[in-house]
Amino acid sequence: MRRKPSQVSPSIRIKLKEARVARFATVDAECRPYVVPICFVYDGRVFYTAIDNKPKRAEPGELARVRHIRRMPQVALLIDEYCENWSRLWFVLVRGTATLIPESATRERARVIRQLKKKYPQYAEGMLPDHAPIIRVTPERIMSWGKF
Amino acid sequence: MRRKPSQVSPSIRIKLKEARVARFATVDAECRPYVVPICFVYDGRVFYTAIDNKPKRAEPGELARVRHIRRMPQVALLIDEYCENWSRLWFVLVRGTATLIPESATRERARVIRQLKKKYPQYAEGMLPDHAPIIRVTPERIMSWGKF
Repeated sequence: MRRKPSQVSPSIRIKLKEARVARFATVDAECRPYVVPICFVYDGRVFYTAIDNKPKRAEPGELARVRHIRRMPQVALLIDEYCENWSRLWFVLVRGTATLIPESATRERARVIRQLKKKYPQYAEGMLPDHAPIIRVTPERIMSWGKF
Repeated sequence: MRRKPSQVSPSIRIKLKEARVARFATVDAECRPYVVPICFVYDGRVFYTAIDNKPKRAEPGELARVRHIRRMPQVALLIDEYCENWSRLWFVLVRGTATLIPESATRERARVIRQLKKKYPQYAEGMLPDHAPIIRVTPERIMSWGKF
């Protein structure tokens, strides 16, 4: 079913909050898709993901996903879980716009860093510096499929 | 590391063959990304995925992923596995072109249907009709990250 973001059902909301990984799709300058796994938090309204200290192929500001959203903010986030019992499969596809939170948004940044560290104990061990770039994804359409 | 498709290492090749799910990213007519989970087979050269009988939101030919690749064949396939031990994370990003196998390619179609049924016992139970549309993804670049 296709839903406006405000109409997300409680059962879907729980999945979106609890999922440990999402797949984040962007497009490059030639309109070719690109997709990487990300850690994220969902506050019931928007999604956040940080450029953390996991090894990267480029400096944070030069990462493909960052270059892509600067040029083309339309993105997609897929949250799903594979299961061999196909009657239990589900996915949620979030389409919307992504933006880097400006450094000046100190309260929003601090809140997100706190939420990420709470959700992922791994971040407590120095993997997420306070100055980490943070991407905010604002949903425009949320589509769900399968069993919830 | 970025590799030409022919340079995929044996350990990555195994991951690509054994993975049960991939995330398939396409772009719509407005150059906005779209991504869904798919079942697939990899024959060491190309990837195949079928429009199977899992419940769908549209007729096979009208599915978003099919409409998208007709218009814009550039796609991305992400194969990864999330793990709470982040030192064991990995992903493989395949970027390339997608095309629907024509109905006239009966031998290729029959081979793929056979491979899909072998990999996924679920398909043996009528979920994959012989006339199912099949998408072939030919890699142009294969990028890998993490531990293999």
